Amino acid sequence: MGKRVDPFDVGEEKIDYNKLIKDFGTESISKVKNLPKGISAFEKDLVFSHRDFDKFMDAVKKGKKVAILTGANASGSLHFGHKLTFDSVIEMQKKYKIPVYIPISDDESYVFDKVKNQKDGLKNARLIAAQMIALGFDMKLTKMFIHQQYTDIYNFAIKLSKKTTNSTIKAIYGFNDSRNAGEFFYPIIQSADILCPQLDVFGGKKHVMVPIGIDQDPHVRLSRDLAHKLDLIKPATYHMKFLSSLQGGGKMSKSKEGSAISLSDDPSKAKKAIMKAFSGGRDNVEEQRKKGGQPEKCVVYEYLEKFFEDKKEIKKRFEKCTKGKLLCGECKKDLAKFTEKYLKTFQAKVKKAEKNVDKYLIK
Amino acid sequence: MGKRVDPFDVGEEKIDYNKLIKDFGTESISKVKNLPKGISAFEKDLVFSHRDFDKFMDAVKKGKKVAILTGANASGSLHFGHKLTFDSVIEMQKKYKIPVYIPISDDESYVFDKVKNQKDGLKNARLIAAQMIALGFDMKLTKMFIHQQYTDIYNFAIKLSKKTTNSTIKAIYGFNDSRNAGEFFYPIIQSADILCPQLDVFGGKKHVMVPIGIDQDPHVRLSRDLAHKLDLIKPATYHMKFLSSLQGGGKMSKSKEGSAISLSDDPSKAKKAIMKAFSGGRDNVEEQRKKGGQPEKCVVYEYLEKFFEDKKEIKKRFEKCTKGKLLCGECKKDLAKFTEKYLKTFQAKVKKAEKNVDKYLIK
Repeated sequence: MGKRVDPFDVGEEKIDYNKLIKDFGTESISKVKNLPKGISAFEKDLVFSHRDFDKFMDAVKKGKKVAILTGANASGSLHFGHKLTFDSVIEMQKKYKIPVYIPISDDESYVFDKVKNQKDGLKNARLIAAQMIALGFDMKLTKMFIHQQYTDIYNFAIKLSKKTTNSTIKAIYGFNDSRNAGEFFYPIIQSADILCPQLDVFGGKKHVMVPIGIDQDPHVRLSRDLAHKLDLIKPATYHMKFLSSLQGGGKMSKSKEGSAISLSDDPSKAKKAIMKAFSGGRDNVEEQRKKGGQPEKCVVYEYLEKFFEDKKEIKKRFEKCTKGKLLCGECKKDLAKFTEKYLKTFQAKVKKAEKNVDKYLIK
Repeated sequence: MGKRVDPFDVGEEKIDYNKLIKDFGTESISKVKNLPKGISAFEKDLVFSHRDFDKFMDAVKKGKKVAILTGANASGSLHFGHKLTFDSVIEMQKKYKIPVYIPISDDESYVFDKVKNQKDGLKNARLIAAQMIALGFDMKLTKMFIHQQYTDIYNFAIKLSKKTTNSTIKAIYGFNDSRNAGEFFYPIIQSADILCPQLDVFGGKKHVMVPIGIDQDPHVRLSRDLAHKLDLIKPATYHMKFLSSLQGGGKMSKSKEGSAISLSDDPSKAKKAIMKAFSGGRDNVEEQRKKGGQPEKCVVYEYLEKFFEDKKEIKKRFEKCTKGKLLCGECKKDLAKFTEKYLKTFQAKVKKAEKNVDKYLIK
């Protein structure tokens, strides 16, 4: 593999998506002929790669048994990067009435050192569960569980573990023996998550789709390999493009201060971060007026396009910007206003959802 | 380590106990000054080695918080080899009112290929649970659980996993990367078992003792290492001598036909196996009458001594045998009679206990 993009460490540089497709041996989404209509992620070109997504959509359209699997590491609150993926799932769920499974991996957060202790992992997991509800999943069609609470996932992992040698884990994840034993076992738990919708207890064999960042693709590879060995249907996936860091120059990340907007950030803090964001503007106002802005490298533009404006609105903004009729400060103010408003509404929903979390969690 | 004695593969040869003590770096039980009185395992010299057993007995005698941990792999019914260990625990429990913890590891059976599938593992585990009750544990003082049912043990294992590198697992267990991922993780689950009596949910820090065959000592080493890292009390252990195969020439084993008497064997089948057992008798009756028998190498004598006769009775038998007044057939008949009677009574108790198993299992 050329560029190192593994599930546990994503680099800083701008991503070359065609190279990633080649490196990971996936397919370009542009080749899929039966993309779902009216789903923002596809309309807005936020997806670049896939495995068997065409087969999954075929199953959806033929009315076969299907499910979407989408989860989160409980390292902290969800951020806008997650929201992109979950919004695409919510739209798919709404349009096609697809059952969704949401495992929240607080064990992963602990073994990979993202939380201080398991208690903090569980606390984050419960916040995330409330955030999932607030994002708008149809909870009647959604099965959500937290690993520390639904420990039965361990039994399924044990089944899968027998079909996986340590060499395979090393080859897929690049681990060496200085990794802790939980890190080594975690890929098996992840595969158990991805394949669990096909368990008898969850209605048996079905087409499962797992939309993820390509940095998580090793998990999909392992689970596809295991599906083959267990006579299950290989899960499909589509890979979302990364959301840029607010500061520019790489993928947004929870672990870098000022890089990400968390869904639990104080709206005024988010506003401040946005006002300092990388906009790709010219050196000064005169030059901006003369040459026009550069929306193709502007993070503010990217966020407005991905989260807040429809095709028509964003096209208008693009034109105004490139013609020098829009200054970066104005775009930042717009993005800050949208974001502030969104966060206020969303956080009120989360507060309400927190009271009902146990109603929706499988234990 | 000289002789290879690991938890997953015990050799055939006669065991040199002094060499084992040296190889495993344990202490001879003969050096312990505060051995419990009136416990058959010690009266009959069935224990040869230990770690911190003196400290454990000290804690018992000072009225400190203590527990005994003793479990079983759910590879099939318990056999007489297990019974020896459990009887020693039951006597200790009765004498000192010690809480006992019994994890039954049906996950171990599956990942180490001792059962065809997890369902069979669970079935065996439930039989073992009933056998444990029938053996005579004081169930008011006993906490028993099956891994596939009490999956919360996974959470504690995750805590421990973070303190153990893959290198450590390899060094202690001699695994290579062709082992499956479940085998690699299982030692962590074992340590979780051994240390679980010290969990807050089970009453917090206490002195734990885990009587085992020395082939299981790597588990104790790992858990002692982890106890140290987690500021828990290092578990103590004593090592039982191996029970010989009925056919002679090595440790009794469930996996070798005719080698072991299972506690679920049909009494008449057990009788037949005993009548074919290795007795160490002379070539013919005349020689036996002339030279006397060789109880020190007789498996029939060993079983009579370990399971059915008290000091006085066995001494009498020894004398009669060595003087040529007892033929092997007579001893075999005695052992067969005792065993048949024991199995009938025991199996009736198991049948009754099977109905109450769920009452006693933590889930």
